[in-house]
Amino acid sequence: MGKILRINMNDLTVKTEELGEYAGLGGRALTSSIIAKEVPPLCHPLGPNNKLVAAPGLLTGTTAPSSGRCSFGCKSPLTEGIKEGNVGGIVSQKLAHLGYSAVVLEGVPKDDKLRMIHINKDKVEILPADEFKGMGNYQTVTKLAERYGKVGIISIGPAGEQKLSAASIAVNDPDNRPTRHAGRGGQGAVMGSKGIKAIVVDDTEAPGVEIKDRDEFKKWSKVFSDGLLKHPVTGKGLPTYGTPILINIINEAGGLPARNFSNGKFEQATKISGEQLVENCKDRGGKATHICSPGCVIRCSNVYNDKDGNYLTSGFEYETIWAFGANCDISDLDVIARLDRLCDDIGLDTIETGGTIAVAMEGGLLPFGDWDRAIKLLDEDIRNGTPIGKLIGSGAVITGRVLGVTRVPAVKGQNMPAYDPRSIQGIGVTYATSTMGADHTAGYAIATNIMKVGGYVDPLKPEGQVELSRNLQIATAALDSAGLCLFTAFAVLDQPETFEAIYRMLNAQYGLNLTADDVAELGKKVLKIERDFNTRAGFTNKDDRLPEFMYQEPVAPHNQVFMVKDEELDEFWNF
Amino acid sequence: MGKILRINMNDLTVKTEELGEYAGLGGRALTSSIIAKEVPPLCHPLGPNNKLVAAPGLLTGTTAPSSGRCSFGCKSPLTEGIKEGNVGGIVSQKLAHLGYSAVVLEGVPKDDKLRMIHINKDKVEILPADEFKGMGNYQTVTKLAERYGKVGIISIGPAGEQKLSAASIAVNDPDNRPTRHAGRGGQGAVMGSKGIKAIVVDDTEAPGVEIKDRDEFKKWSKVFSDGLLKHPVTGKGLPTYGTPILINIINEAGGLPARNFSNGKFEQATKISGEQLVENCKDRGGKATHICSPGCVIRCSNVYNDKDGNYLTSGFEYETIWAFGANCDISDLDVIARLDRLCDDIGLDTIETGGTIAVAMEGGLLPFGDWDRAIKLLDEDIRNGTPIGKLIGSGAVITGRVLGVTRVPAVKGQNMPAYDPRSIQGIGVTYATSTMGADHTAGYAIATNIMKVGGYVDPLKPEGQVELSRNLQIATAALDSAGLCLFTAFAVLDQPETFEAIYRMLNAQYGLNLTADDVAELGKKVLKIERDFNTRAGFTNKDDRLPEFMYQEPVAPHNQVFMVKDEELDEFWNF
Repeated sequence: MGKILRINMNDLTVKTEELGEYAGLGGRALTSSIIAKEVPPLCHPLGPNNKLVAAPGLLTGTTAPSSGRCSFGCKSPLTEGIKEGNVGGIVSQKLAHLGYSAVVLEGVPKDDKLRMIHINKDKVEILPADEFKGMGNYQTVTKLAERYGKVGIISIGPAGEQKLSAASIAVNDPDNRPTRHAGRGGQGAVMGSKGIKAIVVDDTEAPGVEIKDRDEFKKWSKVFSDGLLKHPVTGKGLPTYGTPILINIINEAGGLPARNFSNGKFEQATKISGEQLVENCKDRGGKATHICSPGCVIRCSNVYNDKDGNYLTSGFEYETIWAFGANCDISDLDVIARLDRLCDDIGLDTIETGGTIAVAMEGGLLPFGDWDRAIKLLDEDIRNGTPIGKLIGSGAVITGRVLGVTRVPAVKGQNMPAYDPRSIQGIGVTYATSTMGADHTAGYAIATNIMKVGGYVDPLKPEGQVELSRNLQIATAALDSAGLCLFTAFAVLDQPETFEAIYRMLNAQYGLNLTADDVAELGKKVLKIERDFNTRAGFTNKDDRLPEFMYQEPVAPHNQVFMVKDEELDEFWNF
Repeated sequence: MGKILRINMNDLTVKTEELGEYAGLGGRALTSSIIAKEVPPLCHPLGPNNKLVAAPGLLTGTTAPSSGRCSFGCKSPLTEGIKEGNVGGIVSQKLAHLGYSAVVLEGVPKDDKLRMIHINKDKVEILPADEFKGMGNYQTVTKLAERYGKVGIISIGPAGEQKLSAASIAVNDPDNRPTRHAGRGGQGAVMGSKGIKAIVVDDTEAPGVEIKDRDEFKKWSKVFSDGLLKHPVTGKGLPTYGTPILINIINEAGGLPARNFSNGKFEQATKISGEQLVENCKDRGGKATHICSPGCVIRCSNVYNDKDGNYLTSGFEYETIWAFGANCDISDLDVIARLDRLCDDIGLDTIETGGTIAVAMEGGLLPFGDWDRAIKLLDEDIRNGTPIGKLIGSGAVITGRVLGVTRVPAVKGQNMPAYDPRSIQGIGVTYATSTMGADHTAGYAIATNIMKVGGYVDPLKPEGQVELSRNLQIATAALDSAGLCLFTAFAVLDQPETFEAIYRMLNAQYGLNLTADDVAELGKKVLKIERDFNTRAGFTNKDDRLPEFMYQEPVAPHNQVFMVKDEELDEFWNF
């Protein structure tokens, strides 16, 4: 097992510890365990008692395909509960190669100077970074790569420096672009509160990850890889179209929220579809398929160029296209790509930011469809920290409160992503019950409700959704701890040998004897640790509810409300 | 008993009902009972399922001195819990004279038209009021009095129309000035959400309040009156200086929060003291003593003129002078009076608004002491509904979140009033445990901690504070139900016969046989009804805590933190 690197920003000291009581944990299991044990649940998220943890998964740094995720965890400034968000990019494997299971940022500095952390095999340094003040993530990673070469970079943009609740943490991708974000929950604000602009990780001559039984590992790694390549979603759908393939699929299902969740279909969906995106990529010299992290066989990312063939953005995801597209009534894919680029550069969660602008549109701050003003809100207001910028950067619930909007589609302070829970009831259970607030990745019921992966549960009926979401959330918590991409779940859910490969790889790597049950137990344990933190932070089952309007306002085209009863939602935690 | 008048803004219908299950209740007991029973605890405070209740107290409309309070209640947009705030002025007695125990506003209108309610002995009408859109409370009451004569007026200003969480409900005083406000918790926003600009109450030829035993009532009314006049606080201190007498007293005690609760003393306190205010009133032809409601013998209100002798404001209270003075580092009483006048006119809670500006000062939006900008924030930004105005009008917690401020002195979303709980620990227990959020009036421990009324509990020690606050909160809930001004408590706490007079008057009025125990039981019942609503709305004992910094940052001059332990706070509800 690796070590824990603790960096105290109050006294600017660094120390390395054994994992100790956290032995056997990685990724989300480790971030959530550290936060739950060490952070007072009622502390201010931006104060000295919160911590920010970065943790590679248990398989990260090995040759296991699609295992390069890095979990970030803290008490969230957005939800005020526990938060974990994981991300691809190149940094997680480098941390693992250096032997770090977690990097923990503690305390807040006594001054208002900006600093960066530099980590290599020989030492860890806290260095001045005032020269980067207010700099976007793109320029930051370019300058850092000029100075340090091919390194992994964790960084924040102006939003994180301003400690905005929608601020993300960016990680550079294999092309050294800051396009992979631990977006949700404002973790960038916590990094900003600690005065850290960037963490540079150089794994040159690093020892690498120890594998106890290399032949066994190689065998099961191939099974896992074959499984991913064989499954229609991970082997064909995602590699061809990436996640934007969902625009047409979810629109057809009546679950693509248009204009701040006032319709389940968007008239202009085809203009912003994955098919259109792929066509643009081909016409303009972009890439319709691209890795976000070394060793990924799914390759669902993309590189999107503008009309003149110049790079515009990368990692241009379904949820982002929805957030600024259907949800804001913007149907120009190039405009949405610019908004995505701005979010990546300023360091903002695209889901929260798009959702907030939609709420601001409903609240009359700007008209629906006003993409020009939306771009200015990001590029001028949020980037430069005007009061309106700070407001939008604080997320949908805050913006809705300020503008007097009663229809704010959020749970536990976090805006809902790209699936209407009235048309796809299973994802509504995940939104309601997840320890993270409204988060599709916590238990991606779309798989079973819409894509018929892992069986089928009718999306329009309340029956079976709680059990579905529960099983998915448990499985996801385990995957997030292993460092595996969520998308491996498609193959894992449908193919028993692909699931078996996960614990077989863990056994081979660590010399363990885990069974399928142990994987499920790990997932359950993680969820319960998170739930316990939230309970101590003051959350109750009343927080496991969708907003009032989703129980009262039917949404087209199915004209349904959310029908899973409170008592059924409360059953979620019976495991 | 009176009747309940229900006005449904969804279908614009009016109906009158018997009290039914609410028989025997008045004031806060009635507003809280109606809200707890009829409003879904998880509803949106500005949506169709919230209700706004106005209820005169049980003694209101009689000749009982200082009994003219009107309770307003709803689910609060600021705290998201139950809310009651009561107010003097002339309207409550008129409602009682007309035989109404409560007016309940229900639903929200289907259009965005503004309306008003006109109530007299013959009928209740919903009338168009678009001509009043955006109008300040001063002009509104002037115009309504021109049209309707000497009437009671409940109104909102632009803040309420904008549905801002710091919006108050104004009531006109005997000089027809809108200076008495149900300020806390954003009740003006709920009135605004129902599209009601004003409620005009004309009690001409009204039947008046029935008294079962007039002689007995008269006798105990005199005992009550004599008791108020005899007690040094209600008979001398308040009638001479009004509440601003507290500036020097609380400053001396080290509990006057300066610059967003960063010091317990304000260097410029004498410049904004009650003594200075009285001197200015005398020099300029104002009034240092003045009634807010007919029949009050305490006369703690005032009329404050500017340097040229022109009327500036009235009901210029200690908490307001603190909020914009010490807390914002403004030491010019005339400036503070202008800010008070603006709050009254725009319809804003002075405590929340001053507290929010102090938080905004700490967050760098404007410098401490910048009174010119503070005036513009109110008179231009909030009045005209600019985004910054809407932000400030949403209160300190929201503003603190947007500006990244970690030191936000609030409980349950409501900013603390003018007493530092680290220097006066008893009031900290009230802030923490009150169902209302941080609210000094809920259990005014200052009486016993500082003024040695009702005994003495050392303000600097944690011992005895929970019991003190509990007893005060129970007594206050009963007084608020009777329609008696909180200030009668000073005499009631020290003089057994003054307390006895309360239930004797109730017995004489209603033909009852209440005892002292029944009064306490009523207070307990009210608190538990409110607590139950909050629990169903998702509140837990974790919400019964002060903000983190008050446990960690000692405040001068006593250099103490808040020391009442969590377990002791949890004991509060053991009754």
